[in-house]
Amino acid sequence: MRLLIVNPNISSSVTDLIEAEARLSVSSETEITMRTAAFGVAYIETRAEAVVGAYATLAELAEHHPGHDAAVIAAFGDPGLEAAREILPIPVVGLTESALMTAAMLGGRIGIIAISRRIGAWYRETVDRYGLLPRLSGIRFLDEPFNDISSVQQDRAQQLLALSEAAIVEDGADVLIMAGAPLAGLARQVGNRIPVPVVDGVSCAVRQAALLAGLAPVKARAGSYALPPRKACRGLPTAMAALVGGEGGV
Amino acid sequence: MRLLIVNPNISSSVTDLIEAEARLSVSSETEITMRTAAFGVAYIETRAEAVVGAYATLAELAEHHPGHDAAVIAAFGDPGLEAAREILPIPVVGLTESALMTAAMLGGRIGIIAISRRIGAWYRETVDRYGLLPRLSGIRFLDEPFNDISSVQQDRAQQLLALSEAAIVEDGADVLIMAGAPLAGLARQVGNRIPVPVVDGVSCAVRQAALLAGLAPVKARAGSYALPPRKACRGLPTAMAALVGGEGGV
Amino acid sequence: MRLLIVNPNISSSVTDLIEAEARLSVSSETEITMRTAAFGVAYIETRAEAVVGAYATLAELAEHHPGHDAAVIAAFGDPGLEAAREILPIPVVGLTESALMTAAMLGGRIGIIAISRRIGAWYRETVDRYGLLPRLSGIRFLDEPFNDISSVQQDRAQQLLALSEAAIVEDGADVLIMAGAPLAGLARQVGNRIPVPVVDGVSCAVRQAALLAGLAPVKARAGSYALPPRKACRGLPTAMAALVGGEGGV
Amino acid sequence: MRLLIVNPNISSSVTDLIEAEARLSVSSETEITMRTAAFGVAYIETRAEAVVGAYATLAELAEHHPGHDAAVIAAFGDPGLEAAREILPIPVVGLTESALMTAAMLGGRIGIIAISRRIGAWYRETVDRYGLLPRLSGIRFLDEPFNDISSVQQDRAQQLLALSEAAIVEDGADVLIMAGAPLAGLARQVGNRIPVPVVDGVSCAVRQAALLAGLAPVKARAGSYALPPRKACRGLPTAMAALVGGEGGV
Amino acid sequence: MRLLIVNPNISSSVTDLIEAEARLSVSSETEITMRTAAFGVAYIETRAEAVVGAYATLAELAEHHPGHDAAVIAAFGDPGLEAAREILPIPVVGLTESALMTAAMLGGRIGIIAISRRIGAWYRETVDRYGLLPRLSGIRFLDEPFNDISSVQQDRAQQLLALSEAAIVEDGADVLIMAGAPLAGLARQVGNRIPVPVVDGVSCAVRQAALLAGLAPVKARAGSYALPPRKACRGLPTAMAALVGGEGGV
Amino acid sequence: MRLLIVNPNISSSVTDLIEAEARLSVSSETEITMRTAAFGVAYIETRAEAVVGAYATLAELAEHHPGHDAAVIAAFGDPGLEAAREILPIPVVGLTESALMTAAMLGGRIGIIAISRRIGAWYRETVDRYGLLPRLSGIRFLDEPFNDISSVQQDRAQQLLALSEAAIVEDGADVLIMAGAPLAGLARQVGNRIPVPVVDGVSCAVRQAALLAGLAPVKARAGSYALPPRKACRGLPTAMAALVGGEGGV
Repeated sequence: MRLLIVNPNISSSVTDLIEAEARLSVSSETEITMRTAAFGVAYIETRAEAVVGAYATLAELAEHHPGHDAAVIAAFGDPGLEAAREILPIPVVGLTESALMTAAMLGGRIGIIAISRRIGAWYRETVDRYGLLPRLSGIRFLDEPFNDISSVQQDRAQQLLALSEAAIVEDGADVLIMAGAPLAGLARQVGNRIPVPVVDGVSCAVRQAALLAGLAPVKARAGSYALPPRKACRGLPTAMAALVGGEGGV
Repeated sequence: MRLLIVNPNISSSVTDLIEAEARLSVSSETEITMRTAAFGVAYIETRAEAVVGAYATLAELAEHHPGHDAAVIAAFGDPGLEAAREILPIPVVGLTESALMTAAMLGGRIGIIAISRRIGAWYRETVDRYGLLPRLSGIRFLDEPFNDISSVQQDRAQQLLALSEAAIVEDGADVLIMAGAPLAGLARQVGNRIPVPVVDGVSCAVRQAALLAGLAPVKARAGSYALPPRKACRGLPTAMAALVGGEGGV
Repeated sequence: MRLLIVNPNISSSVTDLIEAEARLSVSSETEITMRTAAFGVAYIETRAEAVVGAYATLAELAEHHPGHDAAVIAAFGDPGLEAAREILPIPVVGLTESALMTAAMLGGRIGIIAISRRIGAWYRETVDRYGLLPRLSGIRFLDEPFNDISSVQQDRAQQLLALSEAAIVEDGADVLIMAGAPLAGLARQVGNRIPVPVVDGVSCAVRQAALLAGLAPVKARAGSYALPPRKACRGLPTAMAALVGGEGGV
Repeated sequence: MRLLIVNPNISSSVTDLIEAEARLSVSSETEITMRTAAFGVAYIETRAEAVVGAYATLAELAEHHPGHDAAVIAAFGDPGLEAAREILPIPVVGLTESALMTAAMLGGRIGIIAISRRIGAWYRETVDRYGLLPRLSGIRFLDEPFNDISSVQQDRAQQLLALSEAAIVEDGADVLIMAGAPLAGLARQVGNRIPVPVVDGVSCAVRQAALLAGLAPVKARAGSYALPPRKACRGLPTAMAALVGGEGGV
Repeated sequence: MRLLIVNPNISSSVTDLIEAEARLSVSSETEITMRTAAFGVAYIETRAEAVVGAYATLAELAEHHPGHDAAVIAAFGDPGLEAAREILPIPVVGLTESALMTAAMLGGRIGIIAISRRIGAWYRETVDRYGLLPRLSGIRFLDEPFNDISSVQQDRAQQLLALSEAAIVEDGADVLIMAGAPLAGLARQVGNRIPVPVVDGVSCAVRQAALLAGLAPVKARAGSYALPPRKACRGLPTAMAALVGGEGGV
Repeated sequence: MRLLIVNPNISSSVTDLIEAEARLSVSSETEITMRTAAFGVAYIETRAEAVVGAYATLAELAEHHPGHDAAVIAAFGDPGLEAAREILPIPVVGLTESALMTAAMLGGRIGIIAISRRIGAWYRETVDRYGLLPRLSGIRFLDEPFNDISSVQQDRAQQLLALSEAAIVEDGADVLIMAGAPLAGLARQVGNRIPVPVVDGVSCAVRQAALLAGLAPVKARAGSYALPPRKACRGLPTAMAALVGGEGGV
């Protein structure tokens, strides 16, 4: 099994976090290729940043997917996920989608713990995009800036536990998602101190990617996830042009 | 990894079908325990049959889950799923839920192919119960009685392909679910002749059960999936009384 | 008019409460048959308990419905309601459904007052099952254990009035439901001290059962509420086998 | 028991139909007062006609409700229903709402049979207004003009049966509503020839009005169904001014 | 461009407020005709008042629309809007609808600031009527009676700013609507002190009316917004009879 | 008034069509700046193409918006719309959103006529993204490839009229949207031959952009449409870096 994991952010420290958590989630025979977005922002919190991240991610996936069995878009909010699913011949998963679908099999209503207030609106829209808003009990968030995106877990464990408690008791969450790659690993660390199942995006995405690869689904040749119809394109990276331009591009 | 799979129907021929498909979906080290409902009907199509199947399934799960890492309720419609999730200390999945969550990661709108018209209403309500009705493109079904539930695949492959085509072109399905244990294996056989990804309940459920077991989530100690509050009970099978009676039963 | 009322719980003290309230809701010519579940738990608060209660209720209804004009499933959450509606030739109502439909004709948004926090999730799912979640303003609940399920009204009247006030002012309820058989009669007692219409499940269910019986609807011979298709069954109580096995059973 | 029934249309022939059906739905001790709108149109099919009918109905109700225990707005679409519920001290029901709530207790998905294509949009919006659109399987309608609104039943019985069949088989209806006062009585006549339960608005409304009167709910003193706040008004009929002007009017 | 603006309330002081704000929203060549409801209440807060206002408004529009290019129903809640859209040959807009549609193009979730608690339920139902409830972040309201509807802005500016802050921070509003004609002009005055875009109903309605008139859409000759089918009517104002009676009336 | 219009596709012939239609929609004093995406595809039909178009559009808007009062993203599907709304200090509208909001003020249910089957899924998701799926009566589409995107109107007028008829009679549309820039101008040409109001994206977008500019809303300084929080970015075009990097970028 060979997995391609793309960090849509430019932060290589976050890429390292993702990789560490990913390695804990797969068998030793699974090979992982890590890619960090060639351009973009330090971490995606907004719709504008997601547009940038989606394009950068699509470029990485188009270029590097050959030889892999499945791909992971490793930022909560899943920038470019459906687009990638249209053009790649292999399964692609995102952190939010796979965490939601996994959480949905562990309980009824799902709470999300996030790293900033601002990121909440984008997360909510992402949940809505998958049709799961009725399952969302609420989004709780750290409400102060943090110094270092890569160390947020250590600094904020206590606060995150309090947010979890509020999500369960006040919002009615049956299961929690620790959202965003910067929180990768936190679910593992604090899981036993939280009285409901907790999942994180990286573990879920890597495992679901492997699961989907195991099913070996056909690449859609009909419906709205078939390759885009062939058409003229200009100025795209070569690999992307071949896919987005449709059926080999023009 | 040890999985407990319960067929909520009394048909041992269907249990065999389920087991065969399940074995194809897990690694060789995974041990599988198969159980068939001790009472109930030949195959569940209606709400009343599902009430019977739910109780029979809960009894099997309560008695046989010790020593397993996850459990599967192996009938489409998932009789007793949420109930089992409340009382068992291990992850439990159903065929419908796991197929839906898996399909949702392979495309946008999901079509279901079913074995009878009557079963459609119950399936629709099951999809709605998980909040995924907006993702459902439609349910297509064989509309004639079949002689032998265990051989429906062979008799009806051509019809099922036509239903798939209609689901894609007329309903807008991006991904299809072959629903119900009797269709276990069909996805594998005809997958390449259908131009969108196809999944079946057994493969998805077994794989998702293994995935959830791998995450090793805590048993909920709070929220609506904690064990029921302790209270008096009467006339229940011993193992069920210990769990449904709450925190050890009374 | 002859009504069959089944208490899905094993508590005969609650059966007495239900009967007392029911007698106040019908004319003197109406005959009432009371049945208490032969097995199960003291009172249903969770999904697992509801699975047990649904099966026990279905058994009572299958055996005792002959000679009655309508039946009532007398626990909030309506365990087994749709199943019973499939197999019985007479109208069947549940406490939650009939209270919701009645309340909906008395105001816009509906608040529910419940006897425990834990029961809230199950009630919410029950409201959702009938498609009325958009009409639900919220569920308020007593949040401490009570000693005796049959005397909760007396002990807690003041608290219940405070919950009602919060439901109206904070949640925007136009009409309230006192939920669960243990609260039967409370609506009658405190109705004048609450500034919006209040209904309770038992009164609504008994009256709606009589109303439906008066309409004398045909038993469905088509659609998803016709008797289940005939099929093999095993291990069911005789009366249930005749109905669940379909069109006379096998 | 004294019921006030207002026909929001100016057609006294339809008022007679309504009265005939109503008399069949109540006990002999129930007194019925019939009122026909003093102004408006022959039968309401559109939003503009409903605005007129709502105002005419409110005027009748305001003037004639004293001495009655409940009131019925006897046109499908329920013009002015929520408004009447705000200002009258007694329960008020409409044909659509009461038929929907009654039908919802007889099956899952509800089909509506209507007397014209044009009326369909208004009916659909009415169902939506009560939050029951997810329960609506569809609206089927006669698609040719009819000569006499009071004799539509006789002329069109065969067509209506065909529409019922389509509603059940193609749309998935479990229960049907014969909509609109002109179809009053049809449910009774053809009920046995349709293989699912059928209800009509007049029977449901009259019975539900009696049921609600029996519950003797308080008039809301809080929430959005309390009397309108006192304020200046001008040009209203005296009885309406006293109620709409709020708490006695100004 | 000639616009007809009808105040559905009888308050000529509010009509003046509306006119002043309207004049600020249109070019100098635009002619405005102001009409005040001939009968009704001082300001509409409830469903009953809206029924009265709808009829009074329809009468004004029917009589005075000739010679105008578009019409505005100038009360939040839009009494009679869809009815007017059916019968008038020119575009008609309401304050709520046009404010919502405009606000939706300035942000994601929309908050409403209202002048009384009571009015909230009616506003919420109005938003729901347009299908935009998922976009509504919440309704905040002044919760004390005010002495003079025409001076509410001056008295309450500080309170309204606090409500705006709560709507943004607690409810998640991205854009705010100052609701109700009495708040006309407030958006203009305090806009710079509120950190998100703010719109008011009058400005939006007048501008959208002009925009729609510019598009010169055909009057619907098919579908549910065509003129009502011709039918008998009685007791309607002459102009309304000609329109509501359908295609020239009878 | 100065409007910036960006064509997210690389087709300058479509840019010309857009400009022609836009000029017909604005007053003579309005200045229009047209921009064509520097890279991307000939016309956007899919999610992958939309990701490319969104990034290309954001780049154009970031660089060229200074000096303009409002901006238009001139492709149906509105690639990058919410992202642009976050980072630009001026109002931004898209073709789909503005057509939907405009159509919603002309009727109840909205039908969309599109230029290809494939584009339907993306349009449906776009309508859903704005929360207006309940208002959508359906999407009808030309189902054969066309030779020249710029001449589709002439070739296909008859087919488009037939689609319109089906949208009205079969789907229940009250108002139609001619979708996609290639159909710009068609609404104007065939409007009188279609019996319900018809709008097109370009006219609506240009007019709504001017309307919003006239309201002069503040740029959000709070909520989820404020500028992204300041953070490190890399590899972005200079103008985009200044905006996406947040509050001046880093």
